[in-house]
Amino acid sequence: MTSRGGSCNDGASSNSNVSNSTNWTKGVKGFLLDVYGVAYNCGQTFSLIDGSVEAVSKLRKAGIPFRFCSNTSTKTPEKVLERLLEFGFDVKPGEIFTPIPVVKNYLRKHGYRPFILVDPCVDQEFAEFDQSDPNCVVLGDAKHRFSYENLNKAFQMLTDKKDSAIITLGTGKYYKETEGMFLDCGVFAKALEFATDKQSVCIGKPSKEFFTAAMNSMGLKPEETVMVGDDIIGDVQGAQQAGLKGVQVRTGKYRQLVDEPHSYVRPDAYVDNLLQAIEIYLAGKI
Amino acid sequence: MTSRGGSCNDGASSNSNVSNSTNWTKGVKGFLLDVYGVAYNCGQTFSLIDGSVEAVSKLRKAGIPFRFCSNTSTKTPEKVLERLLEFGFDVKPGEIFTPIPVVKNYLRKHGYRPFILVDPCVDQEFAEFDQSDPNCVVLGDAKHRFSYENLNKAFQMLTDKKDSAIITLGTGKYYKETEGMFLDCGVFAKALEFATDKQSVCIGKPSKEFFTAAMNSMGLKPEETVMVGDDIIGDVQGAQQAGLKGVQVRTGKYRQLVDEPHSYVRPDAYVDNLLQAIEIYLAGKI
Repeated sequence: MTSRGGSCNDGASSNSNVSNSTNWTKGVKGFLLDVYGVAYNCGQTFSLIDGSVEAVSKLRKAGIPFRFCSNTSTKTPEKVLERLLEFGFDVKPGEIFTPIPVVKNYLRKHGYRPFILVDPCVDQEFAEFDQSDPNCVVLGDAKHRFSYENLNKAFQMLTDKKDSAIITLGTGKYYKETEGMFLDCGVFAKALEFATDKQSVCIGKPSKEFFTAAMNSMGLKPEETVMVGDDIIGDVQGAQQAGLKGVQVRTGKYRQLVDEPHSYVRPDAYVDNLLQAIEIYLAGKI
Repeated sequence: MTSRGGSCNDGASSNSNVSNSTNWTKGVKGFLLDVYGVAYNCGQTFSLIDGSVEAVSKLRKAGIPFRFCSNTSTKTPEKVLERLLEFGFDVKPGEIFTPIPVVKNYLRKHGYRPFILVDPCVDQEFAEFDQSDPNCVVLGDAKHRFSYENLNKAFQMLTDKKDSAIITLGTGKYYKETEGMFLDCGVFAKALEFATDKQSVCIGKPSKEFFTAAMNSMGLKPEETVMVGDDIIGDVQGAQQAGLKGVQVRTGKYRQLVDEPHSYVRPDAYVDNLLQAIEIYLAGKI
């Protein structure tokens, strides 16, 4: 779970204006990139964020490894790849990390019978699991499936079964779609935690395991890796708590009044968008 | 809001078996009684809890003042009175406290335009308020009105309006109906608090104001008043934090494994039911 008010391991905490700092680029060899709010905005319509395709092209051209890391549970990595390719991103299979394959492994490993609250379009991904008499609840981008009936069913199961678990594909409070802000699964995980006195297990950002898996796939160390995201908690603080650097973009769900300065998180840098981050980084490499 | 792990002001914290203690009766001159789970169990069917009518008769006969205090927001005090009379309780108008009249006063005083999430059967109670362009959300026993759509509407309003407020008619985690356990409004208040970083205002148990108003109506001091309830947080700890004594019944939503001993609340006494509490008290008076 995201811890509130935890310490940050960045070197910029005494610097209230980190916008123009290039300290964060030192020793960096690779990037983790959020998708929604950094590459493009999603919702009923999708819109590319200015410069993000160019930013990725520049990374590729410079031979800098990167991975897209999204907490989306409405799409498999293959679907995320498809969408990025449609937008013109230079991205390959194996460069996308989402929680769905990770949570499936987790459920298999523990032999869980899940009650799955995810978007209907990924129901098929969980077809292999026995969902009768569940002993855990999996919370993803479920939106209207977060009904009172479903939450109460989860609550009753969690209360009745001693070793039951709350598994969440992220701890985000909200996400931005083109239509506005929407409550994210972290809010419903928090509601069930409060109701049951159980702690949830997070698969996805900001869990250290998720950042580490993506980073390891590039063969890099934490201090050599930067996460660029629009969620100051899930992306920036999460990365910092896993030992990586965290850069906050001013796109997506970024809100000036809340996120800059943030009450307790100090990003390694604020940038206007992904392209600015990559240009600052590459300028330092010359 | 209920604070977790707060200190209790009872005198029994060093006594793990308080069941047979009569210390709690010393100086007591009046009672606050929970309704659901203490007087009767509710749901699609209603069932009287053994001895509760007799207990109230004994109080009346002995001239001991009492008030029924319920966080129900599916009924007005008048409706609660009606139901109690149907069950045969010796109770009068003015002896019932519920949050609905209190929250209406609160909304009037602050000039709030509420977005009201309560049971449809009390919608009419709020007819006087302008509910367009709301600047606060009121959370009661709303059950299926706690939909994703409504919670997101509340979230968006709370985020968009700087001085907006979350008002909750209790902070309970769950309540018991004859059909099982159900998530209470405290869980949804917690979800909105987490999503918005705003603190909710509680009207009803366990707010000190609510206990105090009921106690004051009997002309008693905190140390002269006992709350008898089935919710160890909302009833027992809440009363203790307001300076009253708190007695836990083993009826209603009481769960032996969770509530006795509780991980951090020490009731002034555990009793099998309301009748036992009143008999212990009256025995000490002879």
